[in-house]
Amino acid sequence: MANNLERVLSIQSHVVFGYVGGKAAVFPLQCLGYDVDVVNTVNFSNHSGYGRSGGTKTTAAELNSMFEIMEHNELLRPTRLLTGYIPGAEALSAVEKLAKKLKHSKPSLIYLLDPVMGDAGRLYVAADVIPVYQEMLPLATIITPNWFEVELLTGVELKDMPSLHRALDILHKDYHVPNVVISSIPLKSWLAAALPSTILPPSSTSSSHLLCISSSLHIPSAADTHILHTSASPRSTVHAQCVPLIPGYFSGVGDLFSALLLAHFHPDNTPENLNATCLSEAVSQALTKTHAILLMTQGQSEGLPEEERQPTDDELDKEDPLRKTRRMRGRELALVKGQDLIRGSGISHVREMMLWDGFWDGASS
Amino acid sequence: MANNLERVLSIQSHVVFGYVGGKAAVFPLQCLGYDVDVVNTVNFSNHSGYGRSGGTKTTAAELNSMFEIMEHNELLRPTRLLTGYIPGAEALSAVEKLAKKLKHSKPSLIYLLDPVMGDAGRLYVAADVIPVYQEMLPLATIITPNWFEVELLTGVELKDMPSLHRALDILHKDYHVPNVVISSIPLKSWLAAALPSTILPPSSTSSSHLLCISSSLHIPSAADTHILHTSASPRSTVHAQCVPLIPGYFSGVGDLFSALLLAHFHPDNTPENLNATCLSEAVSQALTKTHAILLMTQGQSEGLPEEERQPTDDELDKEDPLRKTRRMRGRELALVKGQDLIRGSGISHVREMMLWDGFWDGASS
Repeated sequence: MANNLERVLSIQSHVVFGYVGGKAAVFPLQCLGYDVDVVNTVNFSNHSGYGRSGGTKTTAAELNSMFEIMEHNELLRPTRLLTGYIPGAEALSAVEKLAKKLKHSKPSLIYLLDPVMGDAGRLYVAADVIPVYQEMLPLATIITPNWFEVELLTGVELKDMPSLHRALDILHKDYHVPNVVISSIPLKSWLAAALPSTILPPSSTSSSHLLCISSSLHIPSAADTHILHTSASPRSTVHAQCVPLIPGYFSGVGDLFSALLLAHFHPDNTPENLNATCLSEAVSQALTKTHAILLMTQGQSEGLPEEERQPTDDELDKEDPLRKTRRMRGRELALVKGQDLIRGSGISHVREMMLWDGFWDGASS
Repeated sequence: MANNLERVLSIQSHVVFGYVGGKAAVFPLQCLGYDVDVVNTVNFSNHSGYGRSGGTKTTAAELNSMFEIMEHNELLRPTRLLTGYIPGAEALSAVEKLAKKLKHSKPSLIYLLDPVMGDAGRLYVAADVIPVYQEMLPLATIITPNWFEVELLTGVELKDMPSLHRALDILHKDYHVPNVVISSIPLKSWLAAALPSTILPPSSTSSSHLLCISSSLHIPSAADTHILHTSASPRSTVHAQCVPLIPGYFSGVGDLFSALLLAHFHPDNTPENLNATCLSEAVSQALTKTHAILLMTQGQSEGLPEEERQPTDDELDKEDPLRKTRRMRGRELALVKGQDLIRGSGISHVREMMLWDGFWDGASS
């Protein structure tokens, strides 16, 4: 249970039905003891995967006005900031301005920035948010892009270890992000080939696993000054873990993961030179609990009537649009049913992030 | 923990900071095992008690459009409906239309209608909502007006037992509301004089108590037909309980109480002729947990720095408006800290609602 004084300001989407955005993040944070201030960047009926969805977007002016009133009322007091889906550049700029103000008045603010822009090659925000996110990166304590979002932010196509090195270097060095966590990475052959055997799943199953990578800059303490002198270009510490892929598409998983990661990140309890350990422990908890919720969701959906668990089939979906919406409904995260898992009970085995020794071997400096 | 299939559609206000409206209701419902669909009738920075607050109201057209999309997507599937703060008649009419549709397609829908209009003589919605609420009353399973809202709905000024009889008769008979729960009633002398000694607090402390009344119509089962024949005008069964007043003004208490009442109301487990027992047991749980959260809130606020717990003083508040906002901030409900109480652990003593035998004595038929 978090310290009484911990308070998260969460800025992301709201849907009436189901669990994405704030609906996937706020309840877990509350269960883990955080007071949460909740800004809804949109108020929609349901997530876009249902085909039809609708509602209102909060404008930049409306966001600015609410932030201004909260500042006037001395209600901008979060110890942590969590930002997710913000659909346009103007609204995102309002959030950027707020993040700068919060960071300025409280330098210890922990900011988890999830640069929600798209997935698997498809953008679901206006493209003009990309440069704004790039401007915001130096404010972040942790970022949680997916594979596609790393490519959008860095301009590097990820196709081999040198490109992965380059992308992480850009995020850590050019954008000064201390902690980068990339979850749900398809385990392509070049990635599997580079993984230490301690992390690699049994070869027969590697295509049925996803990889999670966390990369943490060593933040030097005073006692470490000599290291800086002997190492021209200190690289990040990288941890990784493979998680079995659960077939089918589930929405809100990234939002839940980011919220759990933020909830379990406790740098105050960690000596400065163990920053990577602090991050990887939080990632381990977030991975474990997210996977447990997904398993429960899958189990629940398997118990539904047949029409609610039809496999993905674009042809058949076209003939009967409700086929898709029923499938989506059957796959909404079992967050309420799984709340004990979120609180940590019933978790028998933690999926520990493992040190990726030699990750930077062969990287150009 | 509620049945897996239980799903609440909650329609009320949203504030970024603090716990009123949906922020006071949704988390408790989720903790008690309900999936909650959340419609925000407003998106405000904070509750109006802070002096300054702002944001957007959801229009009737926006509500209708979201409800229409949800219906199209087969996402209007609540087993329970909870409505609270809805600031204008047009938006309220949209909610009325929805409630009728839900009730029509699922007659077993449990609808808790909290006719949030004002308190202690002050309206905080547009007056044109009153006739719309009157139209909606027959749809409700339970209503939770405060004292002032009973007066607004019935047009009866509550000043003695005959007027209380008349108001309840109007709600039960003219508006066909089966269950009426009025919490937080100041224990005026005529009310204290009428209370059975089993309910009355020790006389020295009666001014420091609030009364809660629940009134439940006997819903006749087939076996009871003879009662209807012998009794020309079957009256409701009334329960009541006194709860110690906690000094100071706390916001969101009614919203929390209504959510807990709905969560603990389980008519399916109850033989038809025990409707009053089923209601009074739910009220007992809601009263007990609400009071426990208030005590924790008070304790937390007493631990704050002095500037955050200045007593109410309109003169001093005028000189320094932040005096009031800081006091408000210090009195936000300790819902996250008190979540174990909501789940029922740490509750040593339930404040049982007691039968008010003879409540209807002397009432004109």
